[in-house]
Amino acid sequence: MTGRLAVVGLGPGSPAQTTPEAAAALAAASDLFGYGPYLDRLKPAPGQRRHASDNREELARARAALETAAAGRSVAMVSGGDPGVFAMAAAVCEAIEAGPAAWREIELDITPGITAMLAVAARAGAPLGHDFCALSLSDNLKPWEAVETRLRAAAGAGFVLAFYNPISRARPWQLGRAFEILREVLPASTPVIFGRAVGRPDECMIVTTLAEAHAGQADMATCVIVGSPETRLVERPGRPPLVYTPRSSGRAAR
Amino acid sequence: MTGRLAVVGLGPGSPAQTTPEAAAALAAASDLFGYGPYLDRLKPAPGQRRHASDNREELARARAALETAAAGRSVAMVSGGDPGVFAMAAAVCEAIEAGPAAWREIELDITPGITAMLAVAARAGAPLGHDFCALSLSDNLKPWEAVETRLRAAAGAGFVLAFYNPISRARPWQLGRAFEILREVLPASTPVIFGRAVGRPDECMIVTTLAEAHAGQADMATCVIVGSPETRLVERPGRPPLVYTPRSSGRAAR
Repeated sequence: MTGRLAVVGLGPGSPAQTTPEAAAALAAASDLFGYGPYLDRLKPAPGQRRHASDNREELARARAALETAAAGRSVAMVSGGDPGVFAMAAAVCEAIEAGPAAWREIELDITPGITAMLAVAARAGAPLGHDFCALSLSDNLKPWEAVETRLRAAAGAGFVLAFYNPISRARPWQLGRAFEILREVLPASTPVIFGRAVGRPDECMIVTTLAEAHAGQADMATCVIVGSPETRLVERPGRPPLVYTPRSSGRAAR
Repeated sequence: MTGRLAVVGLGPGSPAQTTPEAAAALAAASDLFGYGPYLDRLKPAPGQRRHASDNREELARARAALETAAAGRSVAMVSGGDPGVFAMAAAVCEAIEAGPAAWREIELDITPGITAMLAVAARAGAPLGHDFCALSLSDNLKPWEAVETRLRAAAGAGFVLAFYNPISRARPWQLGRAFEILREVLPASTPVIFGRAVGRPDECMIVTTLAEAHAGQADMATCVIVGSPETRLVERPGRPPLVYTPRSSGRAAR
């Protein structure tokens, strides 16, 4: 009597950026679980049950979805962006590992999606065109010292950085502190991009420099990209500048 | 008489993983540029011109596409995966920066796609569930020492690693050397995933450990993911194991 669980990435917001595979997985589900605003993006299908939950209850939501799948239902867990990047897929795996043996027999399908940094990068040019890191600035689930260590290591070694969870009401100072640390390591002219709600009506893109970037330019729905010393800005008449990181680096021939 | 250039990500291979936005951009183009095998994945549209090129001619291909757009055509540059991740978007930006002023007036749209590491991660579980780096192992365009510095910095700081361009006929030893370096820094039991051609008929997934991983398990179409010391393996009866990196890390409470 074991059902199935699809963990589905919607992409950053526009339905045009949701893959056909993801749309099919959602349409086939008897039960949809997810953070309320993500479920609100979907057209209801007849007979489909919705189980909306709060943003902060990831593990409880994963367990509820697995229980429902184990009872024989066809469940979809809805995630914004890509479910594997700071989202629901890890919470589901964690719940399976800690849960009853029967949960390991559930048919589990994870459907990738366009994650926020890719959508933001595409709007700006190609800031992730060479080696880069994705880093959550939240210290809810790791010590802040680990964030500082990773910031220094990655920026010092020449990676471009993409920040997820840059700021929230409960975490107001972390992004500003991250910029302070990076100003010790990177040139003041390093391009910084704030990309908010890309593909949605309230989309907002800001391109600035590390010297001028400040935490007030981000909110919970923002992905922040900080360039490497090689990241370049190309001015264009009547259009926003392009930000890109060259494919070649250092001493190697172009 | 300025046209437009769309740089379009097809995703990893299955048409079900190409976004509607990408499909629409391809359908609207008068001219398609791209690496031959990527163009071969697309159904021909009536009247559309195809300009296939070799894999290694990225900058020349970008210039040819920009010239065609500047002449008033509606051009799409086709990229596998996401065009912004080790692909054509950076080459196009580079060509615009170095090219004639008129190229800065071309309407440029970059359409994101599912990049290989997201597709591979989704098949395996959630190995990119916490902080991670994407790193090209190619030393065609950067010195090998920079690759080694970045490997040590990222693995030492606790990032999961995703390798693009892990191996080729002209670069046979780099992946093996990368594993050697990582064995100095990471536990022998660290999970390693080789994901090849995900979503295509010749898909192949291998899950192993850093102690047992070897370069012969990868080819040009493979994305390699190396876990952090926190990455876990969950055995499942009758199914491949799940590999995931927990959302929490270090001393922080779960």
